[in-house]
Amino acid sequence: MKYIRFEKEGTIRYGILEGTMIKELDQSYITGKAKETSVSYSLSEVTVLAPVNPAQVLCIGLNYELHAKEQGKPLPEEPMMFMVSPSAVIGDGDDFELAKPEHRIDYEAELAVVIGKEAKNLTRENALSHVFGYTCGNDVSDRDFQKKDKQYTRAKSFAGYKPLGPVIETELNPNDVEVKLTLNGKVRQQSRTTDLIHDVEEILVKATEVMTLQPGDVILTGTPEGVGPLSPGDRIEVEIEGIGKLTNTVRP
Amino acid sequence: MKYIRFEKEGTIRYGILEGTMIKELDQSYITGKAKETSVSYSLSEVTVLAPVNPAQVLCIGLNYELHAKEQGKPLPEEPMMFMVSPSAVIGDGDDFELAKPEHRIDYEAELAVVIGKEAKNLTRENALSHVFGYTCGNDVSDRDFQKKDKQYTRAKSFAGYKPLGPVIETELNPNDVEVKLTLNGKVRQQSRTTDLIHDVEEILVKATEVMTLQPGDVILTGTPEGVGPLSPGDRIEVEIEGIGKLTNTVRP
Repeated sequence: MKYIRFEKEGTIRYGILEGTMIKELDQSYITGKAKETSVSYSLSEVTVLAPVNPAQVLCIGLNYELHAKEQGKPLPEEPMMFMVSPSAVIGDGDDFELAKPEHRIDYEAELAVVIGKEAKNLTRENALSHVFGYTCGNDVSDRDFQKKDKQYTRAKSFAGYKPLGPVIETELNPNDVEVKLTLNGKVRQQSRTTDLIHDVEEILVKATEVMTLQPGDVILTGTPEGVGPLSPGDRIEVEIEGIGKLTNTVRP
Repeated sequence: MKYIRFEKEGTIRYGILEGTMIKELDQSYITGKAKETSVSYSLSEVTVLAPVNPAQVLCIGLNYELHAKEQGKPLPEEPMMFMVSPSAVIGDGDDFELAKPEHRIDYEAELAVVIGKEAKNLTRENALSHVFGYTCGNDVSDRDFQKKDKQYTRAKSFAGYKPLGPVIETELNPNDVEVKLTLNGKVRQQSRTTDLIHDVEEILVKATEVMTLQPGDVILTGTPEGVGPLSPGDRIEVEIEGIGKLTNTVRP
């Protein structure tokens, strides 16, 4: 099932996407209590929003071997966690500004996990049952600030640096889907989540050993090799098999 | 004014602390709309909670010169930002467990800033007018995980590793107060916020250049020199001039 969050007539609404038709729900799907209404819209007549409004955005660093190599970093034995501000989140179709255009600012295609149930001390066996679904993410990163700060929060928390969307897909094997990024129509990243060093269950186990995650919280699972710099006017598409395509442009 | 959040008869309540008397408010003070009720309690008959339930907890690393030196780290030119999970927050009087007792886990006394108004792109001039007030914080840190992960989120996000409290003081010059920590009655940290490398205005300007902070969000401003390890049964008191004393114990 594909869940979509959208705006119509100034109101934030939630729905199920079937083809290009949205069946409206009576409340946020994240509650697990949403019911279908009799209202439907065409996708073309609404404004798509980020499919979730997370309180916590947890990111996993260096979680694909070839990406760790291209960054010249050792492979982390355990999932390397850092957090970014949810104020960085934007949705499909939104543009964003390069906050420091004189810096090197890279795209990073990632599978994003959306939590569905309060999650603490998960096991590999029950981890995925706490997931609501999966969406596409782009972990836009200011490399100059990453090098300068060592900590990654500032580099990755500017407004617009966390595109998410377009929908949350609930039926997906997160550990075996293609993750692809095209920049101005050219393929720049193309990998499969089978190459994740720490798979989604492992990430959930290790993260919830430390913190409690709440419904709507998001985990970005790491980016594969092929990252590269953005310029004003660039059009970025993150496409994950079974989910859809997240398109954003860099403000000219 | 000293604001206090507490539990009485199973309900979370908000009040103003005068001496040992609490005047109850009709809603959370963070809204800025709270009014006094006619109800009052004695401090001894309530359970004190963390004075705020933040969505975002932003921390500033290495913000005192002598602490950066004791950690063998260079001084950051700009405030070094990282985030921890709000699920780590506990209040005055709460105990917490050393999640990995075989690791070195340190106390870190810090002045904590509580945001009062949505804050984005603040200037030095308007920064403090977006602050609700100040409280005591303890940025408990697993040094083994800090070294292993490089990123600090995991090391500092375990349940109970972010004591805050006991009250929020609204009348304070945050850049000139004493910060003191005693461990089992012995003074271990004693410094003044005059020694902050980046003062509170600078932290607010730099943080909100990146992210949007919301009422109730917390910034931990960094710890002075004198950090050291915790053991089961330890009693930690963080005392900040003009605010009060935050007491927590490590579960035996």
